[in-house]
Amino acid sequence: MAFEEASMRGARDGLICTRYTERGAQTIHRPAIREASWVLYVNGQEWVTFLCTPTKMQALVLGFLLSEGIIEGLDDVLLLRVCDEEGMIDVRLKEEITLPTRQILTSGCGAGITFDDLSQIHPPLDSSLTVTPAQVFHLMAELNRRGELYRTVGGVHTSALSDGQDLLVIAEDVGRHNTLDKIRGECLLRGIPTADRIILTTGRLSSEMMTKTVKMGVPIVISRTAPTDLAVELARRWGITLIGYVRGRRMDVYTDRHRIRLPWETGQAEGLRAAGES
Amino acid sequence: MAFEEASMRGARDGLICTRYTERGAQTIHRPAIREASWVLYVNGQEWVTFLCTPTKMQALVLGFLLSEGIIEGLDDVLLLRVCDEEGMIDVRLKEEITLPTRQILTSGCGAGITFDDLSQIHPPLDSSLTVTPAQVFHLMAELNRRGELYRTVGGVHTSALSDGQDLLVIAEDVGRHNTLDKIRGECLLRGIPTADRIILTTGRLSSEMMTKTVKMGVPIVISRTAPTDLAVELARRWGITLIGYVRGRRMDVYTDRHRIRLPWETGQAEGLRAAGES
Repeated sequence: MAFEEASMRGARDGLICTRYTERGAQTIHRPAIREASWVLYVNGQEWVTFLCTPTKMQALVLGFLLSEGIIEGLDDVLLLRVCDEEGMIDVRLKEEITLPTRQILTSGCGAGITFDDLSQIHPPLDSSLTVTPAQVFHLMAELNRRGELYRTVGGVHTSALSDGQDLLVIAEDVGRHNTLDKIRGECLLRGIPTADRIILTTGRLSSEMMTKTVKMGVPIVISRTAPTDLAVELARRWGITLIGYVRGRRMDVYTDRHRIRLPWETGQAEGLRAAGES
Repeated sequence: MAFEEASMRGARDGLICTRYTERGAQTIHRPAIREASWVLYVNGQEWVTFLCTPTKMQALVLGFLLSEGIIEGLDDVLLLRVCDEEGMIDVRLKEEITLPTRQILTSGCGAGITFDDLSQIHPPLDSSLTVTPAQVFHLMAELNRRGELYRTVGGVHTSALSDGQDLLVIAEDVGRHNTLDKIRGECLLRGIPTADRIILTTGRLSSEMMTKTVKMGVPIVISRTAPTDLAVELARRWGITLIGYVRGRRMDVYTDRHRIRLPWETGQAEGLRAAGES
């Protein structure tokens, strides 16, 4: 079996975003980590869908089959075909096997198993909510300040729901996605509407995070760290404002920047001047 | 339905570890983020197992049921019982429903669905492999230097397999667990044994990361960041040396520190002196 990388790459450049700093706003090109969806068929039977960075796909599939105890070595594999175009991996094994079905939601994915077809079109959100850069910086500072577990223990993600002024609900978990489900559940229990609110998180924005966001009717998502390219694509499709890399008084807006209200539009003396094509 | 936190906490203190710095080794108590396993039963039927931080469990379960489209509101729920002792959540719904079974391995968990019973005892690893602190610092610096996607794009995890001298295989992915499966698969393809080697990773060590590690026969696992309490417990059970928080020339060893060889045992002029009860 040949081990080759084909033409797959892990990064995609050329994502256009608008960077806001105290010196103003400017359009920049920023690369994003790639996230792609691959369906694994074993002996003709659809088993699981990987959401992963599409490098070393043969290695990923073989390692997964080893980890799950499906194969013991290369001798068990008759065919391993990775079809770039269709996002499909076809594995034929020497023996007929029964695929495991018991599901464990790991801390990594938490409630990340969505059963949703990613290609299913959620209707775009229609919301007139806006934020100023000053609000974003303030809310993210609040998130960092109030993440209790993070401050004392580390190794945990913190997310919050905000109305633009305060953090209404905060949740922490080893699983990024669990934080969003905890927020949604607590809002249900406390009768707090989630639509037309803001989600802030310390975790990476991947496709599942965006799926949970759109289901909550949240039109603005803010993260301290990087979005994947698929998250950006879904945000664009669903009309969600995706803000990444909020560090101190800098932030990068990837989609729907009409929801960013600049200071002179609000009368705030924030000192943000528009540069370039604001 | 009452919304209460019961006595559950997200952090556990009192984990003893040995911290190595250039000034020597000392025993410290360090808190760890909690990770626990909860089985969700819906209408008497076992559905999924959460690996999560055990706070706001009611909220987590309700949010998950909402996200998955199983419920639309509290009216659909007759009973929600969280049993701390048994790690079990019992949900009764008004309507009979068919639970989704299609599996998506999210970028968060990658191949993190293990189907393994976590309580299943893997036999402890028997390995005479050792490392010096200097080796650990050197290998982690190499990992950071050679993580190409991380350096150029960010938002990605990097892991590597090492023989103690060099990084033999490197993998990057948006999913922590995918990196380990990619390494294992590439080793299979290239005929590289994984037993008695070292795994280094930029990602958090959670239970699934340890499960993948023990299956590869790897007795030393090194991370830049925090382990969960469950990861530490599994490492202890399986005889794996778990090293966390490697930052510059500092590292914390949580388990099996007999595999840490100090400089005077190797003749290296590393300048590490043992303090406390090394």
